[in-house]
Amino acid sequence: MNFDPFIAKPGARIKLKDFDPRLIRGVEEGDLKLSKSELKQRSSELLTNGVKRLAEFQDKLYAQNTYALLCLFQAMDAAGKDSTIKHVMSGINPQGCQVFSFKQPSAEELDHDYLWRYAKAVPERGRIGIFNRSYYEEVLVVRVHQELLQRQQLPDKLKNSKKIWQQRFEEINNFEKYLVNNGIIVLKFFLNVSKEEQRKRFMERLDLPEKNWKFSVTDVKERQLWDQYMNAYEDVFTHTSTEWAPWYIVPADRKWYMRLVVAAVIYQTLAGLGLEYPEVTEETKKALAEARQLLEDES
Amino acid sequence: MNFDPFIAKPGARIKLKDFDPRLIRGVEEGDLKLSKSELKQRSSELLTNGVKRLAEFQDKLYAQNTYALLCLFQAMDAAGKDSTIKHVMSGINPQGCQVFSFKQPSAEELDHDYLWRYAKAVPERGRIGIFNRSYYEEVLVVRVHQELLQRQQLPDKLKNSKKIWQQRFEEINNFEKYLVNNGIIVLKFFLNVSKEEQRKRFMERLDLPEKNWKFSVTDVKERQLWDQYMNAYEDVFTHTSTEWAPWYIVPADRKWYMRLVVAAVIYQTLAGLGLEYPEVTEETKKALAEARQLLEDES
Repeated sequence: MNFDPFIAKPGARIKLKDFDPRLIRGVEEGDLKLSKSELKQRSSELLTNGVKRLAEFQDKLYAQNTYALLCLFQAMDAAGKDSTIKHVMSGINPQGCQVFSFKQPSAEELDHDYLWRYAKAVPERGRIGIFNRSYYEEVLVVRVHQELLQRQQLPDKLKNSKKIWQQRFEEINNFEKYLVNNGIIVLKFFLNVSKEEQRKRFMERLDLPEKNWKFSVTDVKERQLWDQYMNAYEDVFTHTSTEWAPWYIVPADRKWYMRLVVAAVIYQTLAGLGLEYPEVTEETKKALAEARQLLEDES
Repeated sequence: MNFDPFIAKPGARIKLKDFDPRLIRGVEEGDLKLSKSELKQRSSELLTNGVKRLAEFQDKLYAQNTYALLCLFQAMDAAGKDSTIKHVMSGINPQGCQVFSFKQPSAEELDHDYLWRYAKAVPERGRIGIFNRSYYEEVLVVRVHQELLQRQQLPDKLKNSKKIWQQRFEEINNFEKYLVNNGIIVLKFFLNVSKEEQRKRFMERLDLPEKNWKFSVTDVKERQLWDQYMNAYEDVFTHTSTEWAPWYIVPADRKWYMRLVVAAVIYQTLAGLGLEYPEVTEETKKALAEARQLLEDES
């Protein structure tokens, strides 16, 4: 899959109008040629196969215990963060996968620097770590609701500085560069749902009693701040889509396509690592031979 | 499935010779009648279906956000802890499932009381938490290798006390009672592999190059302490199989059967909780109606 249409080009001024939430592209790669309609028809089978191969990669990732993969998801409500994580990651050995959902920070967390709680949750080597929301909330919801910034116990000088967002972008870029330099690959997904599609999904949650519990009235209030959020997101993409950790802006109005794109990006990233099971050294081979002898001597 | 043959009866003196690692029992329950051979033939299908239903329960567990389930696994090497976790838990939404593998304690961990690192990892409400090894190592490996006890920075009086194991059993029982009282259900699995079967599996790991990396020579050394381990395990079962958290001693010589039993115990435990999606209160219904109005007014 060619991911160019989904990547927020590092260094460019990003506008969301250039990213169509309804975009679907066929696949043309080597032997694999699938039109949009074939893609849709076979999406469930393609995802199942993709997840199976992801699971194989993850087994090697775990055995090798060198790299880690951090996938973070940001989106407006009802874009499908939870369901994407569920569909792309179910089938993966949970021993090598950890999901952290970040909610409102606790008093303890507010007493720390803003990256603290996220840094603690960075995946161990050999694992895939999923952040359902992330430190990007610190330049999104905290920016749209500036009263949240006031709750962070920051020095006044910083709290009232106009440069705080630019400063955070740089800090985040440096944090991610540090991770990537050290073998923790960072994949950043924005699930790009349209305002109209969000409305449809909210209505569905209201209509179906079994989905009611998922609905919160504050979701509708946040929706009224849609434009402010989109401005904040555009600024995030413009300043934090980097060569070492670009943003993937994934069309999210069709869930099946969104899941395929997310799975494909993760798949291709892992494929690019050249993962192999650890090689057994000569020294170990000798030790293994001794072990075999011990076992054989038993009988 | 009738679990009686697998349960270490609380209060009884437990002997492992009463638990056959090769035991297989057919299923006779209501409409479901399966002989041993039918069970084996259909084991893969039964497990797949079981995991599917587990996933449904877990979705409700997560939505309800009240109970948590802690499943801990203890076993000798090569009994199949990792593969059981993989096969029973893959397919479950990783967002609601967390696996902790406990290895040798770090210096920081040794500076704390022995339950500290495990207590930190107890699953949040709504989650299934898996402990791959657990605080029971503190009365197993630490008992068999008493030099490990010396490394724990305990007061001399305690370190040299003959009562330390009895004391730990009581502390563990109280810890688990506390968890269960507070809605965190504790399931304890001992994967009961025979010494002969372990030998076979070790040989296999030595024979297959792609399994070599999984093999450590210390595994064979630990095997030489088999009887000491079995004594330690029997003491653990005798003293920590309680009404609130009994031990399941699962026949592990046939992997397919072991997985079915583990899945069935988890399934039946979740089924017994009467999990339902949260009910929407009258107050919330009113709020939902308002939200709907807001959305409808948009168009």
